[in-house]
Amino acid sequence: MHKGRLEAFSDGVIAILITIMVLELKVPHEADLAGLLPLVPVFLSYVLSFIFIGIYWTNHHHLLQAIEHVDGRVLWANLHLLFWLSLIPFVTGWIGENQFAAWPVASYGIVLLCAAIAYLILTRALIALHGNDSVLATALGRDIKGKISPVFYLMAIPLAFVNPWLASALYVVVAIIWLIPDRRIERTLAH
Amino acid sequence: MHKGRLEAFSDGVIAILITIMVLELKVPHEADLAGLLPLVPVFLSYVLSFIFIGIYWTNHHHLLQAIEHVDGRVLWANLHLLFWLSLIPFVTGWIGENQFAAWPVASYGIVLLCAAIAYLILTRALIALHGNDSVLATALGRDIKGKISPVFYLMAIPLAFVNPWLASALYVVVAIIWLIPDRRIERTLAH
Amino acid sequence: MHKGRLEAFSDGVIAILITIMVLELKVPHEADLAGLLPLVPVFLSYVLSFIFIGIYWTNHHHLLQAIEHVDGRVLWANLHLLFWLSLIPFVTGWIGENQFAAWPVASYGIVLLCAAIAYLILTRALIALHGNDSVLATALGRDIKGKISPVFYLMAIPLAFVNPWLASALYVVVAIIWLIPDRRIERTLAH
Amino acid sequence: MHKGRLEAFSDGVIAILITIMVLELKVPHEADLAGLLPLVPVFLSYVLSFIFIGIYWTNHHHLLQAIEHVDGRVLWANLHLLFWLSLIPFVTGWIGENQFAAWPVASYGIVLLCAAIAYLILTRALIALHGNDSVLATALGRDIKGKISPVFYLMAIPLAFVNPWLASALYVVVAIIWLIPDRRIERTLAH
Repeated sequence: MHKGRLEAFSDGVIAILITIMVLELKVPHEADLAGLLPLVPVFLSYVLSFIFIGIYWTNHHHLLQAIEHVDGRVLWANLHLLFWLSLIPFVTGWIGENQFAAWPVASYGIVLLCAAIAYLILTRALIALHGNDSVLATALGRDIKGKISPVFYLMAIPLAFVNPWLASALYVVVAIIWLIPDRRIERTLAH
Repeated sequence: MHKGRLEAFSDGVIAILITIMVLELKVPHEADLAGLLPLVPVFLSYVLSFIFIGIYWTNHHHLLQAIEHVDGRVLWANLHLLFWLSLIPFVTGWIGENQFAAWPVASYGIVLLCAAIAYLILTRALIALHGNDSVLATALGRDIKGKISPVFYLMAIPLAFVNPWLASALYVVVAIIWLIPDRRIERTLAH
Repeated sequence: MHKGRLEAFSDGVIAILITIMVLELKVPHEADLAGLLPLVPVFLSYVLSFIFIGIYWTNHHHLLQAIEHVDGRVLWANLHLLFWLSLIPFVTGWIGENQFAAWPVASYGIVLLCAAIAYLILTRALIALHGNDSVLATALGRDIKGKISPVFYLMAIPLAFVNPWLASALYVVVAIIWLIPDRRIERTLAH
Repeated sequence: MHKGRLEAFSDGVIAILITIMVLELKVPHEADLAGLLPLVPVFLSYVLSFIFIGIYWTNHHHLLQAIEHVDGRVLWANLHLLFWLSLIPFVTGWIGENQFAAWPVASYGIVLLCAAIAYLILTRALIALHGNDSVLATALGRDIKGKISPVFYLMAIPLAFVNPWLASALYVVVAIIWLIPDRRIERTLAH
């Protein structure tokens, strides 16, 4: 099976997820700055989730760039990833509604952790299909970022009950790690 | 007519349907676990419907994989399928709102039944266009899953008024039947 | 300019429009048939609008099938069409909310009339680009359906204030006229 | 990396943004013209934002037309642009809710200004990748429109606190400037 529709469908779902989060930014009835003030935590959580979904999209883009075909297992591994991503708007809204309270921040970490695991499963399904000596397997290499992120989430989840702002800072650290350019796949494909 | 836009449009509609269901997961005002509790039935119905729409997407993907061109009749058979799928978020929300009550569970079965019939009509329209000895016709073969699913729905609809949880269990059984890998089309195409 | 992105963008917008209308079908709090009763006019207006947007999508599909490239003027003629289509969910919801009252039914006709005119402008922009002896111009021919529809809308708008159900029946007639297979473009392309 | 998915994802996000704004046009409970009256400012702000997002889409379309490949930096420059565009429905809704009051009109200008800067950054990232003597660099030339728009926004933002309607008129002027056909890229590609 060709990868075209898997890409198109994933693009559609991710585009919708990244956009419907903005609906949580409810238009205030007041016409002044005071009306915007209660929206600050909603806005902050929106920015963080926009970046995380953006990271997943660019990674997904790179991943599928390195392969040519897919099978039924890959389709479902991909749907499984999209399922966890689809919960990000919900936990984002929960964080915004409760100004970064403990449970919302912890559940945010749980959803990110599940998404990270789902992404790992998708990677494995693709390598199983293309072989350990494929461009993809070489490009991913030891995949340090992919392995370090779940550790951060596992630390942040209990930390949220001690200090939710520190836990949120850990999520920001993960986002920054991913935003630092990582040319593994680009470089391997260029060879 | 080329099949490209039929795929793109269906991907768009299905991507939106699978995503807007998550909007029924209303962000709770409470910041603790108690706030999540009333969302449990909403979440369960979301997971079930996510899987059903995922099944339709992968089946649709396989189906269109096996053909090359479409005509006006196929376009409308496809829109007819999308219409019934578009009602899934509504019945899903109704189930979630009323904790798997009789009428919502029965109406869920009716919508699934109509979608299954619409899928059958789409299959027939495609075979009519490509011929009984086409790759598609061979790949579908006797289509046992496609024929057994409506029977389950027909049993579940009256059962919902006796025991809605048993009826819901029947829907889960259908989902599991479809999730068991089915390589008909993949295998036939590989030949 | 290639037509690819114009198709993709239009598919996206039309897919969203056809889907967000279903959000007007608000999940009832009651768990029985009585809860569905107030939704009947909303559902009827949804079905009608689903068919109209479906007609626009299949016509748009046929239209772009017959051409190869686009220019800036075509992009804006297309955006102009999408603008009027984007108002269909609003007038559909208004009809459903007020059980086919006079003003909503009349405004539905106004939006359909503007969309029909916008479609005509798009057709003209495409013919201007491809020439009067192009496949497209030949395929469209005298375009009887395209010319008769606005006449029906112009009749339905004042009629809505006399009898909104009769006016709505006129919309149904237009939908049926378009649903009758029309193989002009398919036939011309086959030559 | 090929540009295909960047286009598809951007099309998806922009299609959703241009469409969800219409959800701010809340269906009135009244069935007469009086019910539509409070929607007039909402409608006006919708038309203005529809045109602005339409301008961004056609410009984005032209921009990507002139290039062939993208890199990680371009992906993020594009996501950055989409982020600011995603705030347009919010400020549009705020303007509509408060009948073109000072703060909403000023914040509209701020979002447009940030989007214009983000577009400029995207242009620079693309030129950095393709070279100063590429088709793209030649096609963009001195880019007068791109440089004049931020000046108008910078004027409109403080002006909103003196006279929000005059500030809004400045936005309309910018929209008209962009709507005047601009064949730079089309012409250069034609060579």
